[in-house]
Amino acid sequence: MSQTWVEGAAGSPYDIDHLPYGVFDRPGEPARVGVRIGDLVLDGAPVATLGGDPGDGPDLASAWRRPSLDAFLALGRPAWETARDWLVEILTGPEHRAAVEPHLLPVSSVTMRMPFTVADYVDFYASLEHASNVGRIFRPDQEPLLPNWRHLPVGYHGRAGTVLPSGTPVVRPHGQRKGPADAEPVFGPSQRLDIEAELGFVVGAGTELGERVSTADLADHVFGVVGLNDWSARDVQAWEYVPLGPFLGKSFATSISTWVTPLAALAAAWTELPGQDPAPLPYLAVDGPAGLDIAVEVELNGHVVSRPPYSTMYWAPAQMLAHLTVNGASLRTGDLFGSGTVSGPEPGQRGSLLELSWGWREPFAVGDAERTALEDGDEVVLRYTAPGSGGGRIALGEVVGRVEPARAW
Amino acid sequence: MSQTWVEGAAGSPYDIDHLPYGVFDRPGEPARVGVRIGDLVLDGAPVATLGGDPGDGPDLASAWRRPSLDAFLALGRPAWETARDWLVEILTGPEHRAAVEPHLLPVSSVTMRMPFTVADYVDFYASLEHASNVGRIFRPDQEPLLPNWRHLPVGYHGRAGTVLPSGTPVVRPHGQRKGPADAEPVFGPSQRLDIEAELGFVVGAGTELGERVSTADLADHVFGVVGLNDWSARDVQAWEYVPLGPFLGKSFATSISTWVTPLAALAAAWTELPGQDPAPLPYLAVDGPAGLDIAVEVELNGHVVSRPPYSTMYWAPAQMLAHLTVNGASLRTGDLFGSGTVSGPEPGQRGSLLELSWGWREPFAVGDAERTALEDGDEVVLRYTAPGSGGGRIALGEVVGRVEPARAW
Repeated sequence: MSQTWVEGAAGSPYDIDHLPYGVFDRPGEPARVGVRIGDLVLDGAPVATLGGDPGDGPDLASAWRRPSLDAFLALGRPAWETARDWLVEILTGPEHRAAVEPHLLPVSSVTMRMPFTVADYVDFYASLEHASNVGRIFRPDQEPLLPNWRHLPVGYHGRAGTVLPSGTPVVRPHGQRKGPADAEPVFGPSQRLDIEAELGFVVGAGTELGERVSTADLADHVFGVVGLNDWSARDVQAWEYVPLGPFLGKSFATSISTWVTPLAALAAAWTELPGQDPAPLPYLAVDGPAGLDIAVEVELNGHVVSRPPYSTMYWAPAQMLAHLTVNGASLRTGDLFGSGTVSGPEPGQRGSLLELSWGWREPFAVGDAERTALEDGDEVVLRYTAPGSGGGRIALGEVVGRVEPARAW
Repeated sequence: MSQTWVEGAAGSPYDIDHLPYGVFDRPGEPARVGVRIGDLVLDGAPVATLGGDPGDGPDLASAWRRPSLDAFLALGRPAWETARDWLVEILTGPEHRAAVEPHLLPVSSVTMRMPFTVADYVDFYASLEHASNVGRIFRPDQEPLLPNWRHLPVGYHGRAGTVLPSGTPVVRPHGQRKGPADAEPVFGPSQRLDIEAELGFVVGAGTELGERVSTADLADHVFGVVGLNDWSARDVQAWEYVPLGPFLGKSFATSISTWVTPLAALAAAWTELPGQDPAPLPYLAVDGPAGLDIAVEVELNGHVVSRPPYSTMYWAPAQMLAHLTVNGASLRTGDLFGSGTVSGPEPGQRGSLLELSWGWREPFAVGDAERTALEDGDEVVLRYTAPGSGGGRIALGEVVGRVEPARAW
C-alpha cells in the first residue's frame, strides 16, 4: 500500500486503505460528499477534476456536489472503482498535495448528514446465536430455531422513512402492549426499549424487475457497509407481531452510521462462513469466503457491554441479496439491508439487551450501574472495526443514539 | 352539483364529482399530470394558469408539468382543495370551454404511467372476514382470530420498489416452498399464485418524526385512494413467514390503479363502521362514519368471481393511519397503505383465491372453467365503484394484471 501524505492518517483507522464516504456541511455551506482520511474530510467535488477534464470517465464532480451519495451510488461499480483509484492517487502522490490540501477539512469542523436516501429497507435475521437466543427466551419448551431458519435467510421489510443518521436522538415510543399479567392491552411509553447491533449493506446499482442477483455478484450491486442500530420496543413488538411480523415495535427509528465504508475497503475482511448445515439450496450457494471478519462493540453510557463478532453470522450478505431478489424483486439505488442482530456464542457477545439480560430477568452491569432495558438518557454507541488491506484495522462509521423521554401524550 | 360542459361526462362514472388524477404521456411527449373527465384526460398544466397569474395560490402549473403527482401531493390539502375548485370551475363554466377544450385528450390516445413515487408501503389486514377465513383455513382447530386482532389494525411493511402501475404483467415468481408432503424445501415457480383485492390510501402531506396523526386528521394527510392488488405467492409465504412476516411471497409485485381518486370525491361514500368490539383504545377511537361504502369486483378472465364490499371492513383508514404514526413514525409524500384483502361475510364476497377456493380444496367456477390458484395467462381486473356526491356512482381506477409464465432459471 502506498503511503498517504496526509498527516496523521497513516496507521490510523482512516488510513488510505479505508476512504469511507459521507455527506457533510458547514455553517452557510451546502451539504456535499466527503471522504474521510485520518481526522480530515476531503471535500470531493473540487478535487474530482484536478488534472483537467474527466473526459470519458464518470462525472464524479457533479455526483459529489450533491447533498447525498445517491448520484454517486447510481453510477455503478466501474465508477466506484475509478473514484477510489483517483482518491488513492491524489492522497498518496506528493505532486497533488498542494492542490488537494486546501480541500481537507478537520472532521471536527463539519456536521455529518444522512448519507443517502433509503429506498427500501429490509432487515434480516442472520445470526444463528441471536435467533436461537430469542427462541430460547420466548419459547423455552420448544426447539429454539423455527423450521425455515436454516433453509433461507429470514427477513422482512422495515420503514425506510425512519432510517436516521447517527446522532439523532431516539424518543421513547408509545404503543400498545399486553403483558402476561394484563387483562387488556395497555397504551403508553414502551417499557422495553432495546437495541440491535447490526451491519447494514447499501445497494448502489439497482436491477430491473425480474432480474436476479447471484451470490457471486454482490459487489456489482452493494456499494458499501454502514453500522446499524435497529432500535426495538420489545413490549410493542411482542404484542403486535403475529402473524405479519414486527411493525410499530421497530418503525419509530433505525440509526445508521453517517460514514459508508466501501466494500472495496473490506477486501481483507472476507472470511469463511462458520458453516451451514444443511447445505443451502443452489441459488444460495457461495464459493469461497463469504463472511466478514468485523468486530462489533456495544457501548452503553461509556461502558462496553458486548463485543459481538460478525464472523459468527450464519448467513452471508451475498446470500441475503440473492434471496431478496430470487423472486424477481428489483433493487434500487439506496436499498439498505440489515444483517439482523449480531450475537456470538458467548454471553459477552450478545447484540441486544433482550439477550444480555436474558429476557429482562438478569440485569447486567454497566459500569457501577445495571440495566435490563434502556432507560431515558442512556446513550448507545456501536463501533465496528475490520482488518484493512494495509495490515492495520479500519474503523467503520459508529452509530450513536441517546434515548429521550417519551413525549407527553 | 353544477353540470359539466364536457360531452359524455355527465352521468358517467367520471362526472364532475369525481376528477381523479393520473400521469400520462403520448408518443414523443413528456409524461405529465392529467385529470379524467368522462372519456377524456385534461392536460393539467396548460389550464392551471388560465385567467392569468396564479398569484399567491399554489403553483399548480409547475406541479402538474412533472412526470408524477409527487410535487402536487406535497403541496398539501389547501392546494388540493384549490385545485379541485379550479377544475370544477373551468369544467363547468361555459366561458372556459374554448380555452380548455384543446387540452382534453381522448383517454384512448394516452398511456397511463405510475402516478406517484411510493415512499413507504404498508399493508394492513383490516377485514374481519378475511382474517377469520385465513385463520379457519390454516388453523382449523383454533380460534380463527389471533388475540391482538381486535385491539389494533395489524399491518406490516411491504416493498415500495415493486409497486407497479396497473397493466404491468406479473411474472410468476420463483421461491422456496415446503408443503406438508415435502421432506425438504423445494425451489421453483410458485404453484399457489393468488391475488388480494384491496384499497390503497395515498399519503400526500407528510409529518415530522415524532408527530402523531389523530383519527380526525386523515384528510389532512391522505390525498386519495387507489385500487390495489397485493399479488401473493401463498406457498412461498407459508414457508417463509414465521416469525418476521411475509417477505418474498409478496415482494415480487403489488399493482395499483393508475388513477388516484381524491378523498374529496368520496364525500358521499363515508359510512359507519360495521361495529368494533371491544371498543378500541382512545387513540384509535373514531367519531361518526369512518368506513367507506365502496363496491369491489374481482374479475378473472372476463368473469366476475367475487364482489367484496369495502363497507364490511372492521378497521377504518383513519384508524390505520393513527396506528401507523402512534409511535412517532413520520409520514412522507408518497407513503401508501393498503387495507388488506377486502372480504365480506358471503362466499361470493371473498377477495382472495385462497378464500374463494377455501384453501385450494374447492375449485370455483370461472365461466366454464374452474380455478383454485392462478394459472399462466390468467388476467385479473379489480374494479371499484362508490357513490358520488352528484347522486350517481363514480368508478375508481381499475387494477389490471396478467400472469406471465415463470422465467427460465
